[in-house]
Amino acid sequence: MKKVNVALIGYKFMGRAHSNAWRQAASFFDVPVTPVLKVIVGRDEAGVRDAAARFGWEEHSTSWEEVVRREEIDVIDICTPGDTHLPIALAAAAAGKVVFCEKPLANNVADAERMLEAVRANNCLHMLCHNYRRVPAVALAKRLIDDGRLGEVRHYRGTYLQDWLVNPEVPRVWRLEKSKAGSGALGDILSHSADLARHLVGEITEVAGLLDTFVKARPAPEGGGLLPVEVDDAALSLVRFENGAVGTIEATRFAPGRRNYNRFEINGSRGSLAFNLERMNELELYTEEGPESGFRTILATDPTHPYMEGWWPPGHIIGYEHTFTHTVLDLLRAIAERKQPKPDFEDGVRTQKVLDAIERASDSRRWESV
Amino acid sequence: MKKVNVALIGYKFMGRAHSNAWRQAASFFDVPVTPVLKVIVGRDEAGVRDAAARFGWEEHSTSWEEVVRREEIDVIDICTPGDTHLPIALAAAAAGKVVFCEKPLANNVADAERMLEAVRANNCLHMLCHNYRRVPAVALAKRLIDDGRLGEVRHYRGTYLQDWLVNPEVPRVWRLEKSKAGSGALGDILSHSADLARHLVGEITEVAGLLDTFVKARPAPEGGGLLPVEVDDAALSLVRFENGAVGTIEATRFAPGRRNYNRFEINGSRGSLAFNLERMNELELYTEEGPESGFRTILATDPTHPYMEGWWPPGHIIGYEHTFTHTVLDLLRAIAERKQPKPDFEDGVRTQKVLDAIERASDSRRWESV
Amino acid sequence: MKKVNVALIGYKFMGRAHSNAWRQAASFFDVPVTPVLKVIVGRDEAGVRDAAARFGWEEHSTSWEEVVRREEIDVIDICTPGDTHLPIALAAAAAGKVVFCEKPLANNVADAERMLEAVRANNCLHMLCHNYRRVPAVALAKRLIDDGRLGEVRHYRGTYLQDWLVNPEVPRVWRLEKSKAGSGALGDILSHSADLARHLVGEITEVAGLLDTFVKARPAPEGGGLLPVEVDDAALSLVRFENGAVGTIEATRFAPGRRNYNRFEINGSRGSLAFNLERMNELELYTEEGPESGFRTILATDPTHPYMEGWWPPGHIIGYEHTFTHTVLDLLRAIAERKQPKPDFEDGVRTQKVLDAIERASDSRRWESV
Amino acid sequence: MKKVNVALIGYKFMGRAHSNAWRQAASFFDVPVTPVLKVIVGRDEAGVRDAAARFGWEEHSTSWEEVVRREEIDVIDICTPGDTHLPIALAAAAAGKVVFCEKPLANNVADAERMLEAVRANNCLHMLCHNYRRVPAVALAKRLIDDGRLGEVRHYRGTYLQDWLVNPEVPRVWRLEKSKAGSGALGDILSHSADLARHLVGEITEVAGLLDTFVKARPAPEGGGLLPVEVDDAALSLVRFENGAVGTIEATRFAPGRRNYNRFEINGSRGSLAFNLERMNELELYTEEGPESGFRTILATDPTHPYMEGWWPPGHIIGYEHTFTHTVLDLLRAIAERKQPKPDFEDGVRTQKVLDAIERASDSRRWESV
Repeated sequence: MKKVNVALIGYKFMGRAHSNAWRQAASFFDVPVTPVLKVIVGRDEAGVRDAAARFGWEEHSTSWEEVVRREEIDVIDICTPGDTHLPIALAAAAAGKVVFCEKPLANNVADAERMLEAVRANNCLHMLCHNYRRVPAVALAKRLIDDGRLGEVRHYRGTYLQDWLVNPEVPRVWRLEKSKAGSGALGDILSHSADLARHLVGEITEVAGLLDTFVKARPAPEGGGLLPVEVDDAALSLVRFENGAVGTIEATRFAPGRRNYNRFEINGSRGSLAFNLERMNELELYTEEGPESGFRTILATDPTHPYMEGWWPPGHIIGYEHTFTHTVLDLLRAIAERKQPKPDFEDGVRTQKVLDAIERASDSRRWESV
Repeated sequence: MKKVNVALIGYKFMGRAHSNAWRQAASFFDVPVTPVLKVIVGRDEAGVRDAAARFGWEEHSTSWEEVVRREEIDVIDICTPGDTHLPIALAAAAAGKVVFCEKPLANNVADAERMLEAVRANNCLHMLCHNYRRVPAVALAKRLIDDGRLGEVRHYRGTYLQDWLVNPEVPRVWRLEKSKAGSGALGDILSHSADLARHLVGEITEVAGLLDTFVKARPAPEGGGLLPVEVDDAALSLVRFENGAVGTIEATRFAPGRRNYNRFEINGSRGSLAFNLERMNELELYTEEGPESGFRTILATDPTHPYMEGWWPPGHIIGYEHTFTHTVLDLLRAIAERKQPKPDFEDGVRTQKVLDAIERASDSRRWESV
Repeated sequence: MKKVNVALIGYKFMGRAHSNAWRQAASFFDVPVTPVLKVIVGRDEAGVRDAAARFGWEEHSTSWEEVVRREEIDVIDICTPGDTHLPIALAAAAAGKVVFCEKPLANNVADAERMLEAVRANNCLHMLCHNYRRVPAVALAKRLIDDGRLGEVRHYRGTYLQDWLVNPEVPRVWRLEKSKAGSGALGDILSHSADLARHLVGEITEVAGLLDTFVKARPAPEGGGLLPVEVDDAALSLVRFENGAVGTIEATRFAPGRRNYNRFEINGSRGSLAFNLERMNELELYTEEGPESGFRTILATDPTHPYMEGWWPPGHIIGYEHTFTHTVLDLLRAIAERKQPKPDFEDGVRTQKVLDAIERASDSRRWESV
Repeated sequence: MKKVNVALIGYKFMGRAHSNAWRQAASFFDVPVTPVLKVIVGRDEAGVRDAAARFGWEEHSTSWEEVVRREEIDVIDICTPGDTHLPIALAAAAAGKVVFCEKPLANNVADAERMLEAVRANNCLHMLCHNYRRVPAVALAKRLIDDGRLGEVRHYRGTYLQDWLVNPEVPRVWRLEKSKAGSGALGDILSHSADLARHLVGEITEVAGLLDTFVKARPAPEGGGLLPVEVDDAALSLVRFENGAVGTIEATRFAPGRRNYNRFEINGSRGSLAFNLERMNELELYTEEGPESGFRTILATDPTHPYMEGWWPPGHIIGYEHTFTHTVLDLLRAIAERKQPKPDFEDGVRTQKVLDAIERASDSRRWESV
């Protein structure tokens, strides 16, 4: 079978999740091309060497520039902080690689657009990793909507709630620096909810917004006083979709008890759907059935459910990292067929424009077009 | 024991709920004054006569004007559609009665303010019936917040979802006429969520808003073609509170499967609360408890929970109409002590101003001050 | 309309629930005969006088013997402790009254059989108040089973869990005396689960059982040392049904956090049902629907659901005492049609025989026939 | 770092789960010895060759006898059907290997005891894979019980419900043959619930039981008529524990909608716990907290929860196969410290004795000692 050689840039949280996905895809699914975990890249030599050993990469490197230039590498997988996506992606595109990039595509619209232009100009396959699209329950939701089970969609209600910043003693990490992270809850987690909104309901045309920062300064990670928090702690928006639906999308890191509560509810003319990432194996579906109507909880673990043919018997649930495995699986299929997978960099640009509009609306105190 | 003579204007949905409350309060609670169900008033003689018999009123009448003037009547309870609240309340105030009024206080801010002026000018006790404040679980939520269990409140997330208009064949009833109902989901149900927001979090200072009508015309109730729907099917808003909290408040009648889903979630610096009217005997509370932290479901049916000393042993739940009984109970206590109960007409004015600001914001496409 | 004069014996917990039912039935439903709350009976003059005033009875009395003899009384409603059911019911039957009796019918099978013989000999209408049969969600469950939606029933899994005896300082009240209560969790709450099993699945033919008492002595209610607990704290059983189904039925007063958790699950060849009294407005239903299968939560508050035509719009839930109102409603209908209602004293005898078999099986350490 | 060479016998469902565990342990945890996936064994050459490639084993073999004799192999991991555990384990013990065996240890008590004797006689480390002990939420439950948070345990309520045999067209597979599977729901799934009971509550001393087979014959897997179902479809039991607690343990493959519903509830004198495998990242805990008491849902994904330090940030859930990874992790730790891990073959014998007693009790129709 044909092999594809993968280079992974970044070896922390996302690096670990992507490594696992590349490693597991061929164990659990019939892949059309076999991924080879060639090289993992990071700035800290000791760290990346250890990661290579743990996560099963043949080699490690401290220079992404060098790795991107290597002939034998087919796929560049970008798992670094948002501010470095642009240079890596441009170089990877110039080298004609398949470019696979963690979300958010970039920290601003301009960078995202440059990345899209680059992959298009070089005719590269490109994919953005919005892994939650490939939660089986979410993929089932998509299928139900596409099959018309909800009728005409009227409402999207997305909330992505976390609580890791509630404690004011949590330090001012890089995710709270504007230059590195671009924004706070907005780019980090509202982006997920916005991507799901676009995926499941359609394009967003205009927004009203509110960004707020509750704790304005936090301890420096290395000690020695407080540093300013430069990004939003919470982001709230009202949205209008092209197809006439309306919605609210909200994200915060200040919701005690909500560890990773990425929830959406969709109401259509014929039914409703609800999903919550903390119970990611379940999809709630309502359709009208007379006196027997009610929201049903579909445990999306049957072989008839998306991606579940690869895993375990019904009722044996899967976890967070499996969503990356599904994403990598579909990327491998796209590579084999030389077809552009989704979501791609164009989705990245579009989602970035939604975030940008929310930020503008928060400043202008008006509705803004996307 | 002292008695208070009550006259009830209106005998439909709310008339039935209020009748029950007046009848049940003294059976289940130790009331300081005894309510006497004197007279029920309605325009349709046959209908109101039947209601009097069923609901236990001594008399019936077709003239509220006449009843309001009666010397022996102590309390005027207004349960008619919103456009008639003003004249009845003004007359009741002029006659020096205790004025008890169903929400919304009026269909617009100007009328609401006239009503408030009238009861103040005549030194009447006045109360607005926002019954959900007196769901035991909600009263418990209030107590927990007042006790500081949530710390500083940062987020309010209110959604009031119903589905009775999803079917486009539902006729154009009076609730869909602007002259009678004032507005749609906004005044009818978002008003509940806004009242709870004000009650539990604090005053709202500014809003962004979006009103929409999905089904623009519906069959005339008496047949013979379509009539225009003049009010909103859905109302969405972003809100800022005086104390720095932020929120979303949304109401719709187009959420299939959500029969009467009045839900809120509140996140503070020390904990979170969630409530859903469809499971109104339960309150979800999160506080930080180390490895044992989690949202707990308090079944608010113990004698230590608000109002539950009057009902059944723990675990024996109560229903919708009990909230009116609690409201009447507190009104009776206020009458006995000659103290102004809450919520009152001032709350009605303030909540109406929030609704008004949402409507203005939807038109102006800007944030609007309340 | 024809009236029926009711006498209620007992004015504590059940007396209050029955009073409310007699009072509310005609307010919320179209009753074919009108109940008149004639007289309430109790041993304590002050107590019963107060109850009469609170609960709306025309008169009170301290002699059930006298009241049972009164010509104008049509219905004798027995709400006293189990050991007194026999003499009252025999007298009421002898007097030709309609006899309505709280569960358990009696404290043992022999007494229950005498009561059944008496009402039959005197050709009286008789009804046993197992109110949970008339929870709308339970009545819906019955309808679904009768309609064949579950296919052939294989499993019944009934648990009635409470926690009011967990604290060893709770005194040795009458419910813990064998002579008054007959048994403990067995007769008080397992009887409910057994009645629902018989109602929903069919007759029970044999059982294995285990009774246990965790706290063997408790403070005397009037102080002055400990008294022995003479009844079971917990009762567990395996059961076989006539139709081939098998089941477990368990009751305990030692389940912390389970205030009134009367839950059952039924599995058939085509589907499953689950119910929990603490969320008594909900019924969970599973039927096979391919990839969209899942337990759905039916909020049994629509007008199409049993008994809900009398109450509120969809989504406005009802509470514990409403189940007594429904029971009284059906008794009134039976009286009007002169038809024997269900459950009746025969059900009482049969359920008592199940309890008796569980007790025997616990002693013999063998399976016992009912 | 020291390495241990592993040989895995069996490559189907459990073989896949164990392969994954051996592969993943060192990626996600700091293992004290490194497992080397040496050889996987199966009877079908093509099948096992493919499995070796997919699951990452260096070699494959069709002879377990040969592999067990190999000098360099340190661990024999037995994942074959129950009837073959005995010979493999005896050979592995004789060869002085670490013996790791899937549950049930054997198909009957005598075989289980021989296996235990063998590992003891040869001084081998031995471990039984009851993976559900190492669900983080279950391990947290164990910790809470050991810390006394529940007080004295009174009740265990275990139900393991599946639905894969509801359809009578499901063929008569090996799991329905007595000679291969030993028993049906009893050994396959009730054994899990019994192991958890023993782990969390204590040893079981006596039982009452009921086994039943609803569908007595099924299509032969290869076609050509019906074959008898030789094992139980459902197994129900009442149990007494050494420490005075009582319980019900039930398993069935005939509960429509329950895909893999391994649920338990434990009630103690100070609190309660509940767990359900279909939501395996959650543990429900009740402790008495006055008016704020309620079952809380602990999302057991924090780094303070057992095993979660190896995985993802809070709120990112894990799945079924992770429980095997945790089991392998603890086996590796035990190997490094040369300490006997738990559960071991002695647990296997004890659990098998419980199953045996249930079977005897079902036949004798009496309580039986374990």
